[in-house]
Amino acid sequence: MQDPLNTIKPIIWRDDALELLDQRLLPAKTEYIKLTSVESVADAIRDMVVRGAPAIGITAAYGVVLAAQHRYSTSILGWKESIAQDLELLAAARPTAINLFWAIDKMRDLIHEITDDPVDRLLSVARQIHQEDIRDNKIMGDFGASFIKAGSGVLTHCNAGALATGGYGTALGVVRSAWQQEKLSNVYANETRPWLQGARLTAWELLQDNIPVTLVAEGAVSALMMAGEVEWFVVGSDRIAANGDVANKIGTLAGAVQAKYHGIKVMVVAPTSTIDMVVPNGNTIPIEHRSGDELLQLSGQTMAADGATAWNPVFDVTPAALIDVIVTEKGVIEAPDTAKIASLMQN
Amino acid sequence: MQDPLNTIKPIIWRDDALELLDQRLLPAKTEYIKLTSVESVADAIRDMVVRGAPAIGITAAYGVVLAAQHRYSTSILGWKESIAQDLELLAAARPTAINLFWAIDKMRDLIHEITDDPVDRLLSVARQIHQEDIRDNKIMGDFGASFIKAGSGVLTHCNAGALATGGYGTALGVVRSAWQQEKLSNVYANETRPWLQGARLTAWELLQDNIPVTLVAEGAVSALMMAGEVEWFVVGSDRIAANGDVANKIGTLAGAVQAKYHGIKVMVVAPTSTIDMVVPNGNTIPIEHRSGDELLQLSGQTMAADGATAWNPVFDVTPAALIDVIVTEKGVIEAPDTAKIASLMQN
Repeated sequence: MQDPLNTIKPIIWRDDALELLDQRLLPAKTEYIKLTSVESVADAIRDMVVRGAPAIGITAAYGVVLAAQHRYSTSILGWKESIAQDLELLAAARPTAINLFWAIDKMRDLIHEITDDPVDRLLSVARQIHQEDIRDNKIMGDFGASFIKAGSGVLTHCNAGALATGGYGTALGVVRSAWQQEKLSNVYANETRPWLQGARLTAWELLQDNIPVTLVAEGAVSALMMAGEVEWFVVGSDRIAANGDVANKIGTLAGAVQAKYHGIKVMVVAPTSTIDMVVPNGNTIPIEHRSGDELLQLSGQTMAADGATAWNPVFDVTPAALIDVIVTEKGVIEAPDTAKIASLMQN
Repeated sequence: MQDPLNTIKPIIWRDDALELLDQRLLPAKTEYIKLTSVESVADAIRDMVVRGAPAIGITAAYGVVLAAQHRYSTSILGWKESIAQDLELLAAARPTAINLFWAIDKMRDLIHEITDDPVDRLLSVARQIHQEDIRDNKIMGDFGASFIKAGSGVLTHCNAGALATGGYGTALGVVRSAWQQEKLSNVYANETRPWLQGARLTAWELLQDNIPVTLVAEGAVSALMMAGEVEWFVVGSDRIAANGDVANKIGTLAGAVQAKYHGIKVMVVAPTSTIDMVVPNGNTIPIEHRSGDELLQLSGQTMAADGATAWNPVFDVTPAALIDVIVTEKGVIEAPDTAKIASLMQN
């Protein structure tokens, strides 16, 4: 029987090709793009056909499989040398989500070990990354839901759902689990400008699972919190520094600052593959800026006055001090700091 | 000579009719709507042809003139009785901006005094309200600019500019004055969802006066403040309670909460006609909610997933404790409270 709360498959490997649900077209169209080359996978990550840190990692792993298919069939002796540039191409697609580099590193380590036809072994590990991500999301869903009291309202930001992962979701995994446990009175989603991930993706995804959702503009977050509508601000992450600082979609810091003022708790839900032990704190996490046109235009139509420019960082960094709980598949950290994160990562 | 920083005329009285710059069409089209009846004026306020608390007040005053033209020409003896319903119609157009009721009360008091043809006297007072608003905005512009140190960046929200007033603007009046005094290194504007007043109106208005402006999504406010780009968050107001709590466009509370966390100062710029001495604090200010479609759709196109709902309050209330300075035409209040506001109003 199919899991009733895990019906969305953003990433499918079928017939030696990668199929991605094109998130740029949602919710108007549910269309898959079939990719057969590593170049097209890098383009899909860059152009946000697929987005969300865990989903980007899984996609890149399958991208390495496509690269190996081509390189090995072209040169049985030279494939290990020539595939290096494919890994670099994938790694250059987007800068902030650490899961991209984590997945590529994992595939690179395996490539070093392999001496014969690499495709089956690489595919097997890519599938394993994919399946473990879904399994870990369900574990995190239950961990996170255990913090939420019955009758609570939650606010989420961007889309940290099935669409951002292998399936089930990180922040939305917690929402799914808490909803199934009948704990949630309200589910609110920030519309999440400029890309409207909340309005387009999170609302679509929750409604697929018959979880009612109410959208708010980011400007209404404080009003919502002051109105007593939510107890938790629940988000995913693109990279967590060794001290617990959290990089995530622009607006996460804004939400966490407001949550602190209004006495609302902040929960970050992310697999340990999101934790980057190499960066000591959030200051050194690279933050991607995208074209100002994402703000100035909408559906290709210019909204803003001619001549206006826009400042468009697409991630921000929330200091660990503003975070009440970090939920991972290995366990939960309250009031995160360097020591607690180091201890978790040694488990 | 025309004032180089006051080129925009949102409200014009000409040939016995009221002409309003249709703000729903900006920045794509600069079109005036000609209104000759009080009903059409009430519609224009409700449908946001004109918006911004002082502009709504001025528009309503001219609306009373149109009502008097019609009522007096219909019945020289009965006009005072029949015009009462026109005043009620105007007052019901929007609930939050106190300037609407202030202007109607002022016109009602005058109606009580008048014994002969009312049109010229009512028009003369409406014109006076309009001209005094522009004059007061310039006074407030200089008051506010005196707080801003050279080399500062400012962030504004919504549109509290010429378009929201008789001309020159409240918050944008301060920006204009500070810009003319060469004090501003950066002018940022929140795009202001859902109606995009920042992207559509503030950017257009500042660029008309050759003041460069950079738009940000509301989600980027904390990131902008953390990046050290702004020293002041400067906004207008739709109603100020007797204790200094400030109702203004949704997102103002959010911005003020974030400003407090990041050590950025908050300035509210509004004429004393915005101060409502009858409401002791912000809790009793009526907050308008508008259709969720303002979030779910854009330019008539559905953006959000089918079945999603939206919570769409269009104002919020910022506690006086989060406000550093309230600037009025009668003077400036730092760290506002009930006693200081009462003292200002007795001047």
